Amino acid sequence: MADPMATTIKEVFSEVSPIVETSHAKVTVVGVGQVGMACAYSILQQNLANEICLVDVVADKLKGEMMDLQHGLAFTRHCVVKADTDYSITAGSKLCVITAGARQREGETRLSLVQRNVEIFKGIVPKLVQYSPDTLILVVSNPVDVLTYVTWKLSGLPRERVFGSGTNLDSARFRFLLSEKLNIAPSSCHGWIIGEHGDSSVAVWSGVNVAGVTLHDVNPNIGEKADNENWEADIHQRVIDSAYEIIKLKGYTSWAIGLSVAKIVQGIFSNSRNVYALSTNVNGFHGLTDDVYLSLPVVLGASGITHVVKQNLASHEVEKLHKSSRALLEVQNGLTM
Amino acid sequence: MADPMATTIKEVFSEVSPIVETSHAKVTVVGVGQVGMACAYSILQQNLANEICLVDVVADKLKGEMMDLQHGLAFTRHCVVKADTDYSITAGSKLCVITAGARQREGETRLSLVQRNVEIFKGIVPKLVQYSPDTLILVVSNPVDVLTYVTWKLSGLPRERVFGSGTNLDSARFRFLLSEKLNIAPSSCHGWIIGEHGDSSVAVWSGVNVAGVTLHDVNPNIGEKADNENWEADIHQRVIDSAYEIIKLKGYTSWAIGLSVAKIVQGIFSNSRNVYALSTNVNGFHGLTDDVYLSLPVVLGASGITHVVKQNLASHEVEKLHKSSRALLEVQNGLTM
Amino acid sequence: MADPMATTIKEVFSEVSPIVETSHAKVTVVGVGQVGMACAYSILQQNLANEICLVDVVADKLKGEMMDLQHGLAFTRHCVVKADTDYSITAGSKLCVITAGARQREGETRLSLVQRNVEIFKGIVPKLVQYSPDTLILVVSNPVDVLTYVTWKLSGLPRERVFGSGTNLDSARFRFLLSEKLNIAPSSCHGWIIGEHGDSSVAVWSGVNVAGVTLHDVNPNIGEKADNENWEADIHQRVIDSAYEIIKLKGYTSWAIGLSVAKIVQGIFSNSRNVYALSTNVNGFHGLTDDVYLSLPVVLGASGITHVVKQNLASHEVEKLHKSSRALLEVQNGLTM
Amino acid sequence: MADPMATTIKEVFSEVSPIVETSHAKVTVVGVGQVGMACAYSILQQNLANEICLVDVVADKLKGEMMDLQHGLAFTRHCVVKADTDYSITAGSKLCVITAGARQREGETRLSLVQRNVEIFKGIVPKLVQYSPDTLILVVSNPVDVLTYVTWKLSGLPRERVFGSGTNLDSARFRFLLSEKLNIAPSSCHGWIIGEHGDSSVAVWSGVNVAGVTLHDVNPNIGEKADNENWEADIHQRVIDSAYEIIKLKGYTSWAIGLSVAKIVQGIFSNSRNVYALSTNVNGFHGLTDDVYLSLPVVLGASGITHVVKQNLASHEVEKLHKSSRALLEVQNGLTM
Repeated sequence: MADPMATTIKEVFSEVSPIVETSHAKVTVVGVGQVGMACAYSILQQNLANEICLVDVVADKLKGEMMDLQHGLAFTRHCVVKADTDYSITAGSKLCVITAGARQREGETRLSLVQRNVEIFKGIVPKLVQYSPDTLILVVSNPVDVLTYVTWKLSGLPRERVFGSGTNLDSARFRFLLSEKLNIAPSSCHGWIIGEHGDSSVAVWSGVNVAGVTLHDVNPNIGEKADNENWEADIHQRVIDSAYEIIKLKGYTSWAIGLSVAKIVQGIFSNSRNVYALSTNVNGFHGLTDDVYLSLPVVLGASGITHVVKQNLASHEVEKLHKSSRALLEVQNGLTM
Repeated sequence: MADPMATTIKEVFSEVSPIVETSHAKVTVVGVGQVGMACAYSILQQNLANEICLVDVVADKLKGEMMDLQHGLAFTRHCVVKADTDYSITAGSKLCVITAGARQREGETRLSLVQRNVEIFKGIVPKLVQYSPDTLILVVSNPVDVLTYVTWKLSGLPRERVFGSGTNLDSARFRFLLSEKLNIAPSSCHGWIIGEHGDSSVAVWSGVNVAGVTLHDVNPNIGEKADNENWEADIHQRVIDSAYEIIKLKGYTSWAIGLSVAKIVQGIFSNSRNVYALSTNVNGFHGLTDDVYLSLPVVLGASGITHVVKQNLASHEVEKLHKSSRALLEVQNGLTM
Repeated sequence: MADPMATTIKEVFSEVSPIVETSHAKVTVVGVGQVGMACAYSILQQNLANEICLVDVVADKLKGEMMDLQHGLAFTRHCVVKADTDYSITAGSKLCVITAGARQREGETRLSLVQRNVEIFKGIVPKLVQYSPDTLILVVSNPVDVLTYVTWKLSGLPRERVFGSGTNLDSARFRFLLSEKLNIAPSSCHGWIIGEHGDSSVAVWSGVNVAGVTLHDVNPNIGEKADNENWEADIHQRVIDSAYEIIKLKGYTSWAIGLSVAKIVQGIFSNSRNVYALSTNVNGFHGLTDDVYLSLPVVLGASGITHVVKQNLASHEVEKLHKSSRALLEVQNGLTM
Repeated sequence: MADPMATTIKEVFSEVSPIVETSHAKVTVVGVGQVGMACAYSILQQNLANEICLVDVVADKLKGEMMDLQHGLAFTRHCVVKADTDYSITAGSKLCVITAGARQREGETRLSLVQRNVEIFKGIVPKLVQYSPDTLILVVSNPVDVLTYVTWKLSGLPRERVFGSGTNLDSARFRFLLSEKLNIAPSSCHGWIIGEHGDSSVAVWSGVNVAGVTLHDVNPNIGEKADNENWEADIHQRVIDSAYEIIKLKGYTSWAIGLSVAKIVQGIFSNSRNVYALSTNVNGFHGLTDDVYLSLPVVLGASGITHVVKQNLASHEVEKLHKSSRALLEVQNGLTM
């Protein structure tokens, strides 16, 4: 049907050449719950993508979220925002972020969520790969480690192209708590949380440093039971507790994970080769010999993970990774995929 | 009580001079619902403030939202994030953003919300002014025009220091819809919606232009009933409908209003003197002679509104303003304050 | 030769997949004089590109500028910075910015520079197209209008892919001077300078507006001789004079043109479809029937110029364009290319 | 004299309240040479200040640079740009950046510049303090360490409020070269250069790390003569050489120091409490007992330096600091101030 406004528009604009669409920085967010929308809003606001596609099964909510983002476009740099229940709009995505899934309930362990989510992922992952065979996939849904494994299996993609948000957020929480304690900026507090996202995560105290001064050199007991300064209890344990506490207080977590995902998106789209703690296939590292996903520091670029940084872990830290690995393996073996 | 970590910290840091707090860009957000948090998240993410204070009556939710923002601080530039049910933390705010209030229900007119909200504002506004006598106040809660009037009255502040988000968002929606129609960037589409936020808003078609080309010169019937191109129906009416539609689809609006407020905050904190469509006391403009709040284009700086831009409105546009004014006045006269 | 540091590096990093280079936002800057470097520095600082290539004939200066930019990379988001006298490093550029050429001397008209620069461009343009057949070319060197024509001819590219920075800067100067006069933010002052960059430019007073209020409606003589408020003399004439004045004062202009070019680069790389005043082939507009380059408001996207905005010019404004066109045509006809 | 445009302006704008100026983020840059202007341009472009004042003795150049920056204001967020040879415009500055002074000549040691510059500083520092008694002063002019001492003495300010850009840039160069070698982002390469800016600087290899993995643990000889991987020669020595090389190639360094200063400005104006390597009074650290300025990692906030981070240096590193201290002391003792 002809556009009734065509006459006026033609009077104002004279075409020189046809309009093109570009998709070199197209990102798809699957799931428009609180986490997915915090991710999309952050990506939009930080001008990281030139196209954001939202996909969900709830058409009404999906349209409402799309319109609400679109109405903000006059306040941001250019970005195309689309939404549909049909995955065809995601074609050509460079990155797909999966936030869909049943939400973690108060008091529920991350692992107990897994079976409910596997079934959901069967309806998501193959379609993403079908429409964007060259895409990277970032899994955010919890329990993130096993769901990243599930996504890797369902996708058939090489291991460098499927990863989970993992302990990137735990590491940020750790740095924030450290910054409060030391009274300096979080970005000057360096420390890494690796391993399983959640209760069993590992704070690598041997590498925690400010301006290259490792706290472990100052206090050799740091992070261990013999430490009478309680760093592990007062910093790392609070990281673990905080996700549960926020869920108890407000029902879910959203803002920090949105910023965490935006940082990862920035690294990929700018091919920056920064180091992030992401959930990756750990087979071959720290004596682990199974295809299990846990967070390690990885170098991330436009093609996904290119390197793992080999930290020199204490034996009790390695043991924790192995324990997590065994627990995850047991879950994985019980899945019908 | 002594900090158990003090020894290690003293080994690493040697004090040269005491730490100071700064508050030259301190913003308070009252109400941590979807709108308030979208505002706070946008302000944080765009690095607009160096301190954000959240206030609400629901202590649990408040603490959860604060923690969730704080955990993102490792991903942003520096900002202090605080939250409390006690207004003393807001002391020294340069700007207070009020988003608290009963939420607009599906199908509810904005005006029907007013009485419920006046009572709430009596518990908010005097405390804000008590702790920050030099603050500006930006009202976002709906119905925004009458609540801005209420805030002005309750605050005792001069008229330039109390204003409402008004049709700043309506104007953004208008520009987005125009940009879709014209296939150019929203920031190159210039147009203003003024008057009452919502159903009775006025699209000032005489000023709608691209690169200084006013569409009205090309199509003199634009925006009127005689226009067989339907610009009013297809653009302005959709602006009016879209708030209702989004509330119907997702239950509330949040993202676009968050970006809208962030833009206003940026203008104030940088003392930029940009022009925004904000709800202001219109007494003395366009023949209006009552203390009623409606949106007009205003020049905004660090001290609030310094000028109103005098648009040359068509008589039917002026009549709409007067009609809104009469309706608002009737409501105002019915209020017990 | 083996990297002597290989052992340590291998101990720290374990390869998962090979590193890739990306070039979806690669920009080449030809000429590392004050203008070229202000452009490159702005592009780097605003995180607009993921690769910047510098090309010049002076190898020493070129290497020094490259190193100086690279040493700043720890302070910016990711970007690859390369430099060479050989154009092969420019392969795959999405945009080439030409700033090379003899610099405008004090008192020299822009037109007198042309012949010296044509010879230089013969050594530049074909090589750019050879290595990046899909590139857009933005000409900044002066006299920009005729050199954009020369570049178009030498490149063999379609007209939408070759354009000059033109009066984008003149328009910015105009808005700044207007903002000083009106005491509001430059970004709220809307006005366009079109036509020939420099002495013969045209201020389109009919479109100058604030919040849709055109000054011309308030003061119908604005911009004309009968105007006893002197807007043309005090604003537009100062725009014309200011380039000469700055050259007289500091020897060249650099910062504002660097920001102007960065804005154009942002529009292209984000495919934003904003409207800019750029030098384009005006054949077919405003009664002009020759292949001459003058600035008009154009819609710019990832593929170059897609539309020209048709302003409704006063007859004396059209006459000025025709006069510029005739002068440029005379120069063009005298060139040996 | 009455503004001839007053009538039109009054028709468009109706005053509600008077305009105010704000100076909470006012920065003065003394010296508009290549370094000073790269600093000012970066501060402008990164929207770090709301007022930039330029001061120099060459009135023409000064005015030209001011105009060139002002013409870019339509492309940036709001900022006021002023310039004068009279220091009264600097009143109320929160930070003064001194870049004035005789430029380092090819092959000239930094120390040989000092006497020429002391005389110049006598005309600068007292005036800055006179007009902005609460200001911080950042010295960029070379030789930076001794000139920071000179500034501290001339200013009469407490030690936390006078500091030099020092090895902040050397550290950035170090991280860039490391990033090239390791093939990861500079912002993921952590390493610190301290001590004297220039030939005698100290690379603190014990703290160089990626994701908390210190290279020194992998290669215990790193940075020492016994290291057959040549890290000191290939990375740190190149940092030292690069300033000389750039001066040889392009005549001066500008871009990286501009970005370095912008980063420091950001830290101060946001009160971020990040750690920077800045030239500070080292009396009391690492066994040094004289009022000499050398770079150490310091915590920087809105009130200046609050803490020094105490690194555990190797004995040969401490010895280098002492050697630099003795050399600087000798120069200082020879100065007539």
